Amino acid sequence: MVFSSTLLENAVNEFAKLPGIGKKTALRLVLHLIRQDITEVSRFSDTISALRKEIKFCARCHNISDKEICNICSNRMRKNEMICVVENIRDVIAIESTQQFNGIYHVLGGIISPLDGIGPDQLNIDSLIQRIQLEKTEEVIFALNPNIQGDTTIYYIGRKLKGTAVKITTIARGIAFGGELEFADELTLAKSISNRIPVENYISASG
Amino acid sequence: MVFSSTLLENAVNEFAKLPGIGKKTALRLVLHLIRQDITEVSRFSDTISALRKEIKFCARCHNISDKEICNICSNRMRKNEMICVVENIRDVIAIESTQQFNGIYHVLGGIISPLDGIGPDQLNIDSLIQRIQLEKTEEVIFALNPNIQGDTTIYYIGRKLKGTAVKITTIARGIAFGGELEFADELTLAKSISNRIPVENYISASG
Repeated sequence: MVFSSTLLENAVNEFAKLPGIGKKTALRLVLHLIRQDITEVSRFSDTISALRKEIKFCARCHNISDKEICNICSNRMRKNEMICVVENIRDVIAIESTQQFNGIYHVLGGIISPLDGIGPDQLNIDSLIQRIQLEKTEEVIFALNPNIQGDTTIYYIGRKLKGTAVKITTIARGIAFGGELEFADELTLAKSISNRIPVENYISASG
Repeated sequence: MVFSSTLLENAVNEFAKLPGIGKKTALRLVLHLIRQDITEVSRFSDTISALRKEIKFCARCHNISDKEICNICSNRMRKNEMICVVENIRDVIAIESTQQFNGIYHVLGGIISPLDGIGPDQLNIDSLIQRIQLEKTEEVIFALNPNIQGDTTIYYIGRKLKGTAVKITTIARGIAFGGELEFADELTLAKSISNRIPVENYISASG
């Protein structure tokens, strides 16, 4: 693509760095912004800039947050004794959107995957174990993608929690094997939380 | 979608305002930006902000420009006596990318389309007529999309130029390279037959 304007070229190149955005899509987005009101475009750029500068990760659950402790963790209406363990922030958003879960979260920041070189040490597992002991957690609900990595992670953390009184459950497999949690519809996801089953049942059923 | 962070929610909403970007894609883009270096994200937002604040439209050809007169119009190597008339900026970029045209442009800013309520007065047609008279243009090449609106626009401007010495041409219409003859529409196929060219011209042009 040949541009006669450097401003235009720079903007297209910046958009084209985003995942899944090619040069032609980037050009379309940039030409759209040029046609918008200057205050609209300022709001766009200011919002993105503020996001990156001010965003934090909750010191308790590692969820994305505006403050030291996220809105979910600091909400007194939520059940602190129930921790839902998820792989990433997208999964928190997906579960929150069902409005069916009233506990709190723990974001692992990934999943145990030896083939990708991701072991337990790279994930927020130690802080989960500490939380469970400190916060007198009654139940840990695993809401991980139904695949080998997810099962490995459940197994690993489950073993770490052996001997504690905490109840360990996993969301019901309403989601097909190979399905991605974040793309599940809200009803399926909500049902899979309300029909969660003890891990010992799950392992004996799938094995 | 339920967010526990206002910063995140605002950023997702801003991206989701862009054409063809839904909420889920917006979230993916925003989470990507959060993972980037702060200087990278600043460059992104600054570039977008600068684009909208500083971008101009060339006073001569209405192309997008960093200065009063665009790089193409102010390039002394280009043939000023040949004006290529296009609908929009994207068409300028497409033709420039072929690196086959050495004249200058005139961007109409649209096309005559009575059904969409777009008449000649809303387009940069008067300035085109003025340019042709002032700049001693020798040839006007219409590079408009081959449809009724394009043909209407060519016909309208052509009539305005009647009596002047300027040569009026249009880009060749025919079957695209790689296109299948059997899937071409009848009008295109008919025109490609009536406007057939000697094989020796065709071979020397494409080779």
